[in-house]
Parts: sequence; C-alpha cells; structure tokens
Amino acid sequence: MTQPLLYFDDLKVGDTFTTGSHEVKTEDIKRFASEFDPQPFHLDESAAQGTFFDGLAASGWHTAALTMRLLVTGGPRLANGIIGAGGGIEWKAPTRPGDVLHVESEVVELIPSRSRPDRGMVVLRSKTLTQRGDVVQELTAKLMVTRRSSA
Amino acid sequence: MTQPLLYFDDLKVGDTFTTGSHEVKTEDIKRFASEFDPQPFHLDESAAQGTFFDGLAASGWHTAALTMRLLVTGGPRLANGIIGAGGGIEWKAPTRPGDVLHVESEVVELIPSRSRPDRGMVVLRSKTLTQRGDVVQELTAKLMVTRRSSA
Repeated sequence: MTQPLLYFDDLKVGDTFTTGSHEVKTEDIKRFASEFDPQPFHLDESAAQGTFFDGLAASGWHTAALTMRLLVTGGPRLANGIIGAGGGIEWKAPTRPGDVLHVESEVVELIPSRSRPDRGMVVLRSKTLTQRGDVVQELTAKLMVTRRSSA
Repeated sequence: MTQPLLYFDDLKVGDTFTTGSHEVKTEDIKRFASEFDPQPFHLDESAAQGTFFDGLAASGWHTAALTMRLLVTGGPRLANGIIGAGGGIEWKAPTRPGDVLHVESEVVELIPSRSRPDRGMVVLRSKTLTQRGDVVQELTAKLMVTRRSSA
C-alpha cells in the first residue's frame, strides 16, 4: 500500500516511522570497504582479529548508507524526497556480517524556515537496529521538507 | 614517502592534513545512488531538473564515503586506523559529476580517555572541497586513537 506524500505541515513531533529490513552480507561489507574505507578490520576476517573491532565489521559509512537506503525505500514518504542538510551521527556498535538492519525514526523537531516560506526543517532521529534489537547507529538528521502551501 | 604512524600523544590541536584528490564520475554517482539512495536527483539527469538540486547531484552519503576514502588513503596515518565514534556532518553544496574532491583536516580537540588510559578521542574537522575551492561537506569526527604508551 502506497503511503500518501508528506509535506512539512503534515508532520508532528513524535511521529514515528519504521522501515523494512536489509541483511548485511560479508561480501557487501568487503566491497563497500574496498571502495570507500579500505582498512583491515573492514576487509578481511583474519586481519580484523585483535583490532578494536576484533572481527570483521562494516564501515560506519556503510551502515550510514544502508540506513539511507532503508529510509528512502521504506521510511517517511516526504514530498520532495529525503534531502538532508546534515546532522549528527553516532556509531554505537559495529555492524557485523549477517546482521539484518532496520530503521526506527521519530520526528523530534519542526523548524519552519524564516527566509523560505515554502519549506521547513524536520529534525528526524533515526536508530538503526539489528535483528537482536541492538542499536548500531543513531542519526539525528536535519531534513529540508517542502510546505504543503507551496505545492 | 610513507609517513610515520601517529599516536594520540603525537597529535596537537591545530595539526593539519591534506589528502590526495578523487574525481567523481557520473556513473559512480548513479551506481552509489542505485544501491544506497535511489532518489531521482541522484539517478538521472533529466529527472533531476527542477528538483531542489536542479541537476544530477551525488548523495550526501556518497560524498561522506568518498571523504572517508580520501582520509584512509591519504589522510593522517593514525596508529590503529581511522575509527570514528561519530560526529557532526554538514552538506554545504552538492557534489556534481566531474568534481575533483580533496579533504583538508585539522585537529580541533584532544580528549584523553578517563576510563581507558590506552586511548584518547581526537576531534578532527575535515572539509571536503572541489577543484574550485567550494566546500561540499564539513565533518567534525570523533576518532578513537591509541596512546603511544600502550604500544
């Protein structure tokens, strides 16, 4: 069932969204790391032993990118898309091979733009969790969202 | 020339690092977006017209991932690797096809760990710039760095 498009004016502090899930495979961890974060603990099981991660772990940026994928494909259907100006990110635990991630988001603040009456800033806190309920990442993103009046 | 490995104790506030550069190709923008951020303005030139970006633009997470690649392959040679606990990120301008990115970093704070005498937190502010000197991203990352005394 397709959800209706959401404008800034449709959102309320406390609104929550839950995405679908995505399994992180060993080969995906290594492929992402080869291109973007080629460090031993993201590339090779043996080399990862005895490091800070003590075992193969996904790059934090891979977890972040997968979080975006989950939000875009199954998070809030924002009218103009999910467009972030920035935010804060915390990696609370490593993402491991075989982890099945999903994202739980909550609107924490709504800031109408003073200079641009056609838009506002939505602060969305997104926790990325494993199938065991462990939070691997917390992202507090500032999203630029179109106002309904401008549509 | 290989730089020596850097421990927490070797770093000073104000230390700077400049990476090599990397050209962002159209096909890379679309490939990253297909996998992690499948929105029209990251996938297709025509569909990107008239959107917030008004033309094809890289996903912010692609810019972030490329920043990590540049830091890992040509940034500070931290003794235990570049391991982030999190940080703040701002996308100041879109990354466009053909942009050649590099990263300029500065140590802004050094926080010894109270509970773990073998490590400290290094706050590294990294600006990602184009060949024109435009800043596309600013990342203030908290990195976990081993102390020399623990080596």
